[in-house]
Amino acid sequence: MHSSIPAAKTLQCSENFLFCQWRIPCKHHSHSKLVYLSQSSFLRNKRSPKWDKFTFIQKDRIQCQALKTENTPFSVGKKFQLDDVIEAQQFDRDTLSAIFEVARDMEKIEKNSSGSRILRGYLMATLFYEPSTRTRLSFESAMKRLGGEVLTTEDAQEFSSAAKGETLEDTIRTVEGYTDIIVMRHFESGAAQRAATTADIPIINAGDGPGQHPTQAFLDVYTIEREIGKLDGIRVGLVGDLANGRTVRSLAYLLAKYKDVKVYFVSPDVVKMKDDIKDYLTSKGVEWEESSDLMEVASRCDVVYQTRIQRERFGENIDLYEEARGKYIVSPAVLEVMQKHAVIMHPLPRLDEITVDVDRDPRAAYFRQAKNGLYIRMALLKLLLIGW
Amino acid sequence: MHSSIPAAKTLQCSENFLFCQWRIPCKHHSHSKLVYLSQSSFLRNKRSPKWDKFTFIQKDRIQCQALKTENTPFSVGKKFQLDDVIEAQQFDRDTLSAIFEVARDMEKIEKNSSGSRILRGYLMATLFYEPSTRTRLSFESAMKRLGGEVLTTEDAQEFSSAAKGETLEDTIRTVEGYTDIIVMRHFESGAAQRAATTADIPIINAGDGPGQHPTQAFLDVYTIEREIGKLDGIRVGLVGDLANGRTVRSLAYLLAKYKDVKVYFVSPDVVKMKDDIKDYLTSKGVEWEESSDLMEVASRCDVVYQTRIQRERFGENIDLYEEARGKYIVSPAVLEVMQKHAVIMHPLPRLDEITVDVDRDPRAAYFRQAKNGLYIRMALLKLLLIGW
Amino acid sequence: MHSSIPAAKTLQCSENFLFCQWRIPCKHHSHSKLVYLSQSSFLRNKRSPKWDKFTFIQKDRIQCQALKTENTPFSVGKKFQLDDVIEAQQFDRDTLSAIFEVARDMEKIEKNSSGSRILRGYLMATLFYEPSTRTRLSFESAMKRLGGEVLTTEDAQEFSSAAKGETLEDTIRTVEGYTDIIVMRHFESGAAQRAATTADIPIINAGDGPGQHPTQAFLDVYTIEREIGKLDGIRVGLVGDLANGRTVRSLAYLLAKYKDVKVYFVSPDVVKMKDDIKDYLTSKGVEWEESSDLMEVASRCDVVYQTRIQRERFGENIDLYEEARGKYIVSPAVLEVMQKHAVIMHPLPRLDEITVDVDRDPRAAYFRQAKNGLYIRMALLKLLLIGW
Repeated sequence: MHSSIPAAKTLQCSENFLFCQWRIPCKHHSHSKLVYLSQSSFLRNKRSPKWDKFTFIQKDRIQCQALKTENTPFSVGKKFQLDDVIEAQQFDRDTLSAIFEVARDMEKIEKNSSGSRILRGYLMATLFYEPSTRTRLSFESAMKRLGGEVLTTEDAQEFSSAAKGETLEDTIRTVEGYTDIIVMRHFESGAAQRAATTADIPIINAGDGPGQHPTQAFLDVYTIEREIGKLDGIRVGLVGDLANGRTVRSLAYLLAKYKDVKVYFVSPDVVKMKDDIKDYLTSKGVEWEESSDLMEVASRCDVVYQTRIQRERFGENIDLYEEARGKYIVSPAVLEVMQKHAVIMHPLPRLDEITVDVDRDPRAAYFRQAKNGLYIRMALLKLLLIGW
Repeated sequence: MHSSIPAAKTLQCSENFLFCQWRIPCKHHSHSKLVYLSQSSFLRNKRSPKWDKFTFIQKDRIQCQALKTENTPFSVGKKFQLDDVIEAQQFDRDTLSAIFEVARDMEKIEKNSSGSRILRGYLMATLFYEPSTRTRLSFESAMKRLGGEVLTTEDAQEFSSAAKGETLEDTIRTVEGYTDIIVMRHFESGAAQRAATTADIPIINAGDGPGQHPTQAFLDVYTIEREIGKLDGIRVGLVGDLANGRTVRSLAYLLAKYKDVKVYFVSPDVVKMKDDIKDYLTSKGVEWEESSDLMEVASRCDVVYQTRIQRERFGENIDLYEEARGKYIVSPAVLEVMQKHAVIMHPLPRLDEITVDVDRDPRAAYFRQAKNGLYIRMALLKLLLIGW
Repeated sequence: MHSSIPAAKTLQCSENFLFCQWRIPCKHHSHSKLVYLSQSSFLRNKRSPKWDKFTFIQKDRIQCQALKTENTPFSVGKKFQLDDVIEAQQFDRDTLSAIFEVARDMEKIEKNSSGSRILRGYLMATLFYEPSTRTRLSFESAMKRLGGEVLTTEDAQEFSSAAKGETLEDTIRTVEGYTDIIVMRHFESGAAQRAATTADIPIINAGDGPGQHPTQAFLDVYTIEREIGKLDGIRVGLVGDLANGRTVRSLAYLLAKYKDVKVYFVSPDVVKMKDDIKDYLTSKGVEWEESSDLMEVASRCDVVYQTRIQRERFGENIDLYEEARGKYIVSPAVLEVMQKHAVIMHPLPRLDEITVDVDRDPRAAYFRQAKNGLYIRMALLKLLLIGW
């Protein structure tokens, strides 16, 4: 119905103006340059994965909508579905690849300029029901590096405190009125999905109890690609607490999306990888094996992914904990058998499962890995707020 | 003494420059466009409701002062008295109306543009002696939506911790050196007034114990006007805990400023509205009646203002609490008898005094009400920092 | 090797552009105007006190380096060593003087304009392992008054919480990836130095246990210079808890850098100044004496520096505390004997060691002193991030 509308005025405007005035993501192939338009703050409040559900007010906004719904000779399909980031598995290989491409742009933005203003005027709330300073700082830094602003809530628990007892849904409905995107950490599995179902603005899951922590999984895969240069055909040794570690489980799920991957599990008996992941890998054709020989595995792998044995999982069995904890330590001896191109990763914080004298080796990738979390989060914030 | 000074240089500058360089609120009728000038950061430190008390340094600042004190053919009178926001009763009907007008502008700013810079360069401190994440986020969002910056203090209690014992007055004197406006939440009635008496910068009371929470009262009245379209002649049913609810008491005070208002009180016997409010309404000519029939009241009212029965008020009398709590629930049955134009309000958080299946009805106004808190706070920040 | 490179393009750019694109501090005498260039965010990550250790990526960055290493006909020497602020003693008299000069510029910036953008694009993290709202707000205000952004961490303790046990070094390595400068408060003496040794970005010590609190010492000396107009030849009475007070000890160290200074110690016997400071002053040729007559000392001094008797130092000896606490009170009677130009200082918070009726006297300098903390911190942030 709008097929004849050229929307010329819009497309002649400067990129800056487009951001300010339009904020509707769209690509127009008849122009030589890719034009990003993001959702306006008005539209964000009525946003929908399908554009034709938008209610527009001004005439030329309808024109721009027309561009999207009728003139687009290209397939952006799924990309526009990036409404929330709830669990790692929701993303396919192409989407991951596209996110990583944006993350690499973010590395340039963070390193070369004096501060991007891409997300100027946008407001992110960090709604943390349990403390996680590391994750919170990483998201807040990401937002601010892109020129956005942050509302911090470290004590979101206060919303639902004993005397008050507000539901998560009511809290989300209130907070979404104050901000453009919510980054939520919760102690209950499934909380992020409940928030996303309620909210009209994007939700990013920054960890919900034993459930998901998708941005950690993304940064792990991104780090492997950045350090090793590929994802197909890689060999990854997962070491340490494989029974309780949320990160290794999510990583296994994501690795299954790539070809010819081989996974080694190296862990004390009490914290072995559970069958659900093994079955999943098998069903996806991913080769895996368990080993008790860290040196052997380290010599074969591209990536040694070490994790912390979590004391709190052992209750009063301190003996079992101490035994498990000392069993597989990454030390200079492990470095000696590792290949030159291989790397050691760790989700941090670490105790002594990687000795400090390993840090100096260029193959110690864990602090670079932490930094990659910044780029991944910058990329996701950009994608959720202003589109591809 | 300055009557012949045209202050031409100043008035020819762009609005942006005026904000940056002058920040002195004044209107000049010989120009077609209303020019807002706000207090400079220097002046703010020596600010006074009467302009001629200002000590100016630069010559042309004196000129601008002259414009105000001698050339102004209009009455801005009381409006410039908005130095602090301490209690709801301090505001008369005209001032409320003016604040609401600014709040409506703020709705447009928040919805249509990519981020206002009206308060750029201004710094607000949230000094919270008890947690109130909802209120804090609302104020911080308001400041950031206008381009201002925020210093957050959720643990202001630390200032006066046991070992240290600093007075509120000393704390205020220190903090006012770091910021342009203070939003304070305190557990003691009267604390906000003490802060305002001490500070040379504006103070906003974000709740002081059982005392006042004026911005909540404003947003309630603003919501009634926005939803019903009028304030004179409205019928409001106050439901729930009327004895302890700070919001219903403040709302009653403000409603008394309007004409032909009728108030219904619907509450369990143990938490009935106290006599002081009843006497006040009578003295102001406001009609009121108590009722135990929520359905009857709901069918007559424009606004059903539900509140939470606060368990903490009942001590160990859990039975009394449970009885009071279940007595007046707003459910779809209540919606059925309500008029089509009427609305349900609630200060939030709610437990089950409004059932979740009411949320879908367009007359459920409580989340819009929470959002209105943002606009009211944006308006007040603008008015206190840069004037009308 | 770069001596023939004029780097013309760079130097023709506007100051703003230089900040944005270069961020490398350097002065070029062949130009009439002092040109400040600060480190780029890339360079900041590989920063070194000696410029020739920088690894540059782009060709014209090497040109600018050349300007510094080969063309500079002036001595900027030590000034560029301002990489971290760990302890007050690390600064010599000339450096202090230079810092104070920048602090005075900061007073102008804070008072006269609508918000500086000098540090736009820069991010500061406040990493506080123990609460100190006053100090935190002062630093955060300083950063924001200069246009910079802040990541707040009031619960940095969470990084090394029982279950996790991360080392300070690992925490610093992670956080430095998210920010440009870290302001750290810690409960352990020496923690700031450990952080600075680890970090590639600047660290400011905001107090490390019984150790140092250098920015407090700077603001004290700065206040004396601002209030009295000189530092050589001044007479300072240190009053109160001289045994435990970190501030008076640091102040004594710094005063020893000036000429003809005379220091009086006035304290209850149980909290007398320790011998190490007395010996230090003697070794530096600073005259000092102990006195039990506050009135006598007050009549002679330029500065009466009162401090709080810290109850927590007395354990269960409440009697001793009460006796010590009441012994030397600064009251209007003390004001009467003080000289007209003299001032009363106090690091705050105060209890009743200065009576409230002293506040009105213009010689009560303690709130101005607190405000000076803002200027000193603005100056240090500017110097550490973009140079002199």
